Amino acid sequence: MKKRVVIVGGGFAGINAAKILGNRGDIEITLIDRKNYHLFQPLLYQVAMAALGEGDIAAPLRNMLADYQNITVFKGIVTGVDVENKIVHTDFREIPYDYLILACGVQHHYFGHNEWEENAPGLKTLAQAKEIRRRVMEAYEKAERTTDPVERKKLLTFVIVGGGPTGVELAGSIGEMSRYTLSKFYRNIDPKLTRIFIVEAAPRILGSFAPELASKATRSLEKLGVQVWTSSMVSEVDENGVQIGNERIEAATVLWAAGVTAIGIGKTMGVELDRIGRIIVGEDLSIPSHPEIFVGGDLAHFSLENGNALPGLAPVALQQGRAIGKNILCDLKSKSRKAFRYMDKGQMATIGKNKAIVQFGGIKFDGIAAWFTWLLVHIYFLTSFRHRVFVLLQWGWSYFTFSYGARLIVNKEWRFYPDAIRKAVCSDGEEG
Amino acid sequence: MKKRVVIVGGGFAGINAAKILGNRGDIEITLIDRKNYHLFQPLLYQVAMAALGEGDIAAPLRNMLADYQNITVFKGIVTGVDVENKIVHTDFREIPYDYLILACGVQHHYFGHNEWEENAPGLKTLAQAKEIRRRVMEAYEKAERTTDPVERKKLLTFVIVGGGPTGVELAGSIGEMSRYTLSKFYRNIDPKLTRIFIVEAAPRILGSFAPELASKATRSLEKLGVQVWTSSMVSEVDENGVQIGNERIEAATVLWAAGVTAIGIGKTMGVELDRIGRIIVGEDLSIPSHPEIFVGGDLAHFSLENGNALPGLAPVALQQGRAIGKNILCDLKSKSRKAFRYMDKGQMATIGKNKAIVQFGGIKFDGIAAWFTWLLVHIYFLTSFRHRVFVLLQWGWSYFTFSYGARLIVNKEWRFYPDAIRKAVCSDGEEG
Repeated sequence: MKKRVVIVGGGFAGINAAKILGNRGDIEITLIDRKNYHLFQPLLYQVAMAALGEGDIAAPLRNMLADYQNITVFKGIVTGVDVENKIVHTDFREIPYDYLILACGVQHHYFGHNEWEENAPGLKTLAQAKEIRRRVMEAYEKAERTTDPVERKKLLTFVIVGGGPTGVELAGSIGEMSRYTLSKFYRNIDPKLTRIFIVEAAPRILGSFAPELASKATRSLEKLGVQVWTSSMVSEVDENGVQIGNERIEAATVLWAAGVTAIGIGKTMGVELDRIGRIIVGEDLSIPSHPEIFVGGDLAHFSLENGNALPGLAPVALQQGRAIGKNILCDLKSKSRKAFRYMDKGQMATIGKNKAIVQFGGIKFDGIAAWFTWLLVHIYFLTSFRHRVFVLLQWGWSYFTFSYGARLIVNKEWRFYPDAIRKAVCSDGEEG
Repeated sequence: MKKRVVIVGGGFAGINAAKILGNRGDIEITLIDRKNYHLFQPLLYQVAMAALGEGDIAAPLRNMLADYQNITVFKGIVTGVDVENKIVHTDFREIPYDYLILACGVQHHYFGHNEWEENAPGLKTLAQAKEIRRRVMEAYEKAERTTDPVERKKLLTFVIVGGGPTGVELAGSIGEMSRYTLSKFYRNIDPKLTRIFIVEAAPRILGSFAPELASKATRSLEKLGVQVWTSSMVSEVDENGVQIGNERIEAATVLWAAGVTAIGIGKTMGVELDRIGRIIVGEDLSIPSHPEIFVGGDLAHFSLENGNALPGLAPVALQQGRAIGKNILCDLKSKSRKAFRYMDKGQMATIGKNKAIVQFGGIKFDGIAAWFTWLLVHIYFLTSFRHRVFVLLQWGWSYFTFSYGARLIVNKEWRFYPDAIRKAVCSDGEEG
């Protein structure tokens, strides 16, 4: 009897677990993901900023796993897990398992204000990246059109809530684009006057980095025209801007890069969760009360000796995925499972052309060396040779011509006949 | 006093008129387009089929026209033209003109059944290309999931209504993809069983080509598994398929490539239109009753000596745009305008790898030579050097690896918190 392994989520953890277990005759694997693709999330902000296209950082899960005959991929939504009967409920079928690997990640969290999402999209999916791109470019189009100077100022103001790597990378990109790239394209506005704010609740940005690196990154951001507001807690987001206690910034575009919460699956299972909904795992990465259920990647809360949890980084997810696969193989060989040990790969963030910070154990550096390190590491970890070639070519092109990729505003509405739409889906055909 | 030229539409006609008139001190140009980009429409079907990305065949109008200091580009919608007072009405401002160039093209036409659009998207915009890509790939995902063989057959059936070049290129692409590329990616279905129909009302497909070329294209399509139904008029399109008189095909995916109608602007102006709403122009490409208004591209009805109108092809639009620009310059120099003469560039269509047909005056050929001609011509006419390089690279990659680009299904819905959506826009967050 083959062991049935169900993997929920095709991110770094899921895909690497699948590869370890692939092409083994004694295992039958079902991988389920809401999307049909694996996403290289560290470069998602570049899609949002039109530096890369969606195909450059994503690959269909079917293609990636095509050579593993024992893996079936389904695009579908997991609606719950019956841990007693070992059944995954989905929107299309019930799937029984012997082993379950949960690796479906986290989502943005609005601190109890989910209604803020409408005016402050987060950046976790390709759909969100394209929404951000659309909003940023549409703001410039509207600014070029308006004759009202106050309205224009609001349109040329961008607020990024959250000063982690994603917030810093978004702000740096907008800074670079507005200061260097856009100037010659407009006749009625000066894109160099774009105001960009990072609003961070903590006393400094990039809290996971060493203070001296965060300080250097702050200076680099300032040189690109980004205003860094620390110790600033957003108290309200509306369609005209953000409120920060008694202060207010009028902005047509607000982007959310603060706070994450685990995808809700853990809550349906009656297992132990941490404060932000992540599932607490033992040192073999399984749930203590259910050794047949493993959790990896951002969804897992893996405690370190100092009491902290491992951060939600790609290398952590990748290593956990492999470790989960190997621990299942240990079970099949009747060997004892191994405790997971994270091999620290350091962390890095890029601020703009030739500007980045790198921290690796005790080693810290910044500037052009850090930027090249960032570039090489990201190229190396891209999914396929094809991705590497095309991303390198585009970066090379942008680097030497200082022009970005195509900043297209693609309508969300594909229909041409609005009457038909109103009849069909009751929504407004004039929309965006 | 500078002459004010307003151009509506940034397609081949609009952009080429703008370039002729650019950087002249005595002219002030305003170009208005609903989109912020120029689209290389002949390759749009490749975006729909995921062979190319959107950035490969589109470029922001601002970038293309950045070096012409006398051109202002606005993304906006033209709502009407006041021909008496020479004012263009838009959704953001009234814009007066001395010369008006209308070049806003055509749209799909459902022969009085606009409600068919919901179940049979056309292919004129990037948004539509991505909707088609989403539907085609989603059909395979659902087919892999279902256990009902009749449902599966319906999901693996694609009907293309219309046997012109666009319909043929779409059908050929789906044929090639299903017969050669997709096979190894699915475990529960055989993509080679995909049924593909071209449904054409006329007695043969590719009516604008010589019969022997159309016949060869039909054979090429058949070899890729495409079933060509001619003399077949669609009488009903619904969410489960199409009705053709007494015959019926059950299909989850129907694509529309039949019939166009002019964008409605002509109707608001009280000028002479043809049967499908195109504006009838004189031999200088202006409207006879309004010599200050020119019309170019698909929107123009330019009569040939044999009584036919020039077809809606990219080279026609390109040459008309240039001719309009030159005729305006003639006016400014007080020279008489020149009659427009179309330099026939022939026509071509591609069916699949190494398969195409080319017709140029009396010369007709097909097969690999035609395919290479098609390839070189399309590369040559791409907008920029960057586009040429990246399209060639992707085609080269696909040609030698027989793998297409990233067949990603990107959600239309970017929001994560459905409650917030319902409050905000009254639509269903679970959608696609």
